[in-house]
Amino acid sequence: MVATDNFQKTSELAQFNLAAYLKEQKQLCDTALDQSIPVVYPEKIYEAMRYSLLAGGKRIRPILCLATSEMIGGTIEMAMPTACAVEMMHTMSLIHDDLPAMDNDDYRRGKLTNHKVYGEDIAILAGDGLLALSFEFVATQTPENVPPHRTLQVIARLGKALGAAGLVGGQVVDLECEGKTDTSLETLNFIHNHKTAALLEACVLCGGIIAGASPEDVKKLTRYSQNIGLAFQIIDDILDITSTQEQLGKTAGKDLTAQKVTYPSLWGIEESRVKAKQLVDEACAELASFGEKAVPLQAIAHFIINRNH
Amino acid sequence: MVATDNFQKTSELAQFNLAAYLKEQKQLCDTALDQSIPVVYPEKIYEAMRYSLLAGGKRIRPILCLATSEMIGGTIEMAMPTACAVEMMHTMSLIHDDLPAMDNDDYRRGKLTNHKVYGEDIAILAGDGLLALSFEFVATQTPENVPPHRTLQVIARLGKALGAAGLVGGQVVDLECEGKTDTSLETLNFIHNHKTAALLEACVLCGGIIAGASPEDVKKLTRYSQNIGLAFQIIDDILDITSTQEQLGKTAGKDLTAQKVTYPSLWGIEESRVKAKQLVDEACAELASFGEKAVPLQAIAHFIINRNH
Repeated sequence: MVATDNFQKTSELAQFNLAAYLKEQKQLCDTALDQSIPVVYPEKIYEAMRYSLLAGGKRIRPILCLATSEMIGGTIEMAMPTACAVEMMHTMSLIHDDLPAMDNDDYRRGKLTNHKVYGEDIAILAGDGLLALSFEFVATQTPENVPPHRTLQVIARLGKALGAAGLVGGQVVDLECEGKTDTSLETLNFIHNHKTAALLEACVLCGGIIAGASPEDVKKLTRYSQNIGLAFQIIDDILDITSTQEQLGKTAGKDLTAQKVTYPSLWGIEESRVKAKQLVDEACAELASFGEKAVPLQAIAHFIINRNH
Repeated sequence: MVATDNFQKTSELAQFNLAAYLKEQKQLCDTALDQSIPVVYPEKIYEAMRYSLLAGGKRIRPILCLATSEMIGGTIEMAMPTACAVEMMHTMSLIHDDLPAMDNDDYRRGKLTNHKVYGEDIAILAGDGLLALSFEFVATQTPENVPPHRTLQVIARLGKALGAAGLVGGQVVDLECEGKTDTSLETLNFIHNHKTAALLEACVLCGGIIAGASPEDVKKLTRYSQNIGLAFQIIDDILDITSTQEQLGKTAGKDLTAQKVTYPSLWGIEESRVKAKQLVDEACAELASFGEKAVPLQAIAHFIINRNH
């Protein structure tokens, strides 16, 4: 599937080489993440943290953060510590979600999950260590040309996106709904707004804040990121049904097996695709005023609904 | 046991009513902690977080933070968000430590542990939620008369104290040593420097930094806190042997059952007490230049070795 299928027919978008852009940004992120965690005594915990953090992944979250910083007029360097932090947070949530007491998953990104390699105790601590490091990293590594009050705002938003009012809260409701077949659309929206969209939103907003986004910019970025967050989850649900385990890199068909209510189970696959496309079009329209500077974020939005893993 | 037994014979220390001071500061902390977490949808996670955070405890960590801020010339108000954060972090570490995959404890502070009440999945998430909130809380609640660069320094120190270079790293080595009877003094020191002393040190230093401590102040505070951190752990080890479960509020004699190497097992109980007393005397001497302003921190240091639970 070609990532440019659904692009708005503007010349900038049509000419933009998203694949090359994503590859380049991913390499920058991978290098920064690799350097973010040394291996010192006690080696096991650092290795466990690195195992999951460097296990691949598309790095969509840090790339969103970097792209937004650049759109608003900041630099990659200003946003890189925050970009690394969001990937650490995302990884921490995956490690804890995969635990036997939670989703009990053996595979993630095509590799054994953290607790299958290092044991449950170390996996819990590796998640805690990544979470602590993420905040420390933003506080210590953000360059001096970012005013400290902006960095504090970033930390506040990241904490909220991750905590009970964000990812953690979404996961709690998700656990409560497991095995139920009568979950309402309202509840499903709550789960995804918190479990997936909150951190994606934080990636975009924090990239913007670091670069000095105005209150008006923040509003646009909020609407952009909420739309792509929901679209992202709808596509995830569809992929869980239509993909093979090999494509997905994790156990496929888990939602069906768990009798989870998902967007495709409520709307059907085709209608779900239409809704996702609509959300992405609206997201791109929000950024129209940024002109060609918005092209990377617009292209990423389209990529989200055209990916196959 | 009277907490003033081992006081330096200065008139300020002799006259200082530590019991009244601790009671008053604890009430301030309990009120602030109670207000720090609302109960909103999904209630279960907020209740789980509150259950452990408000389960009592002496609030030694937040009180150290507040007392240091006042000694350096700051206020209670400036340091309270950080004081709450260190208690959230401490609570998070207890919740995760008590999990079946870790220390597998059923009781803590005389109450059922978090996972015994809410289940393992919620207990993991409650810890994650407290950790995320702790950083968010410092970033959003620290009053405006604290310059943002100080607040960033606090967040950096808290992150380090909690992560692989601090509490998490200490816990990893502790887990590795379980069941071993040949743990060296060096390893034992590593465990306690990281598992206990690192966060105590952060409490003191962060209270100082918020109030504008000079580099020279920071050095004194570091030596004070490292000494009381180690003394604290030595006394904890002694209490594990000499106390009843009722006094301790958690399972007593666990270290013996687990054949853990502890300070009393290396030095004997009496020699351990002597070392703890020495450490506390040195800690108090470090603060001599602060005159009578140092009295609360000096009294707390003595309290640490004279407590019986």
